[in-house]
Amino acid sequence: MSQPPVVLRPERDQALRQRILACALARVGAGGFAALTMQALAEDVGIATGSLYRHFRGKGELAVEVFASASQREVAALAEVFGATGSPSVRLAAGLRQFAARAWGSRRLAFALIAEPVDPQVDEQRLLYREAYAELFVELLEEGVAAGEFRVAHTGLAAACLVGAIAEALVGPLSPPARAAREAGRLTQGLDEVSQDLITFCLRAVGAEEPQS
Amino acid sequence: MSQPPVVLRPERDQALRQRILACALARVGAGGFAALTMQALAEDVGIATGSLYRHFRGKGELAVEVFASASQREVAALAEVFGATGSPSVRLAAGLRQFAARAWGSRRLAFALIAEPVDPQVDEQRLLYREAYAELFVELLEEGVAAGEFRVAHTGLAAACLVGAIAEALVGPLSPPARAAREAGRLTQGLDEVSQDLITFCLRAVGAEEPQS
Repeated sequence: MSQPPVVLRPERDQALRQRILACALARVGAGGFAALTMQALAEDVGIATGSLYRHFRGKGELAVEVFASASQREVAALAEVFGATGSPSVRLAAGLRQFAARAWGSRRLAFALIAEPVDPQVDEQRLLYREAYAELFVELLEEGVAAGEFRVAHTGLAAACLVGAIAEALVGPLSPPARAAREAGRLTQGLDEVSQDLITFCLRAVGAEEPQS
Repeated sequence: MSQPPVVLRPERDQALRQRILACALARVGAGGFAALTMQALAEDVGIATGSLYRHFRGKGELAVEVFASASQREVAALAEVFGATGSPSVRLAAGLRQFAARAWGSRRLAFALIAEPVDPQVDEQRLLYREAYAELFVELLEEGVAAGEFRVAHTGLAAACLVGAIAEALVGPLSPPARAAREAGRLTQGLDEVSQDLITFCLRAVGAEEPQS
């Protein structure tokens, strides 16, 4: 018997669950995980807090699901670019450019996913998703090494370095102080500069030819 | 008046507080922040749990202090190497080598500081200390750029990339599965390899001459 372990949910329940997740994602996108409270979310969805608890045992479980589904979408978007045509260097640069642009387009959400202080359960997910990203980089690095474009001794370690560099590079520009500075018209780096710096850093780091920008 | 804002603590209290912090650090070094419970710590120190709460309001406050003091020690160690004599490239490589070696020497603690899923308060400290590390790198990068050794457009962004790369590179090798594999004699990268890969990655990334290893 490979039935789901809990009760079978009628379709209506599944639809409500999806609606709850969509509202939760919108809430995190607007105010980070700090804004994800069960009560406020129940109000957004238009249900009683008690009904919300029928679907999610608590804020932690909900935060983990929101994190996982938003991160999975980013991993898939990056996988698509890395799996497209073009040389490994070109695909690496394109993937980085897209990653930065997507983060820029949803700054509050991106900061929440990458760096917002969160419950340990969400931190666990961060570790798992960083591995998922690292696997994508390993594949591309191995292609690039085989093609003679990249010079990397251990692709696993270089992949981890890339994942860390990319995440950390975006923390500052996406952080609340930088967002405030940008909104106030005070000088901070824009997307194009951040993106170009990141591409240059990463391509050089893996021993690729310098990009012609 | 620059007296401490709370009550003046007699010397004996200060000494006990230091002893509590030392025991807490030992506990995190042995089993991570997960092993830091008020009850177990009180037993280690040999005091009643109630007395422990007189010094620290709870596990969160204690974890933050342990994190900050252990991290401060690492920042200071790196600052010393970066501030020594030698060219910026040589100092960058030496700093990375020392950082990796220190992490390797206290793997469980290093993993706890860098990546263990923890309470949001400790995550806050992680963000702050990553900025402290980044500042050290900015200084060194600026020296290196001025000396014509490094080619970096924005030192702040490159510094963040370096901090992220270094942290993430060590997560895997320091992680519980890797430690288990090493203890079981199964193949994983050793310190020398990790250290050398990291140095190569970082020097290349900032446009320095490739190290002669």
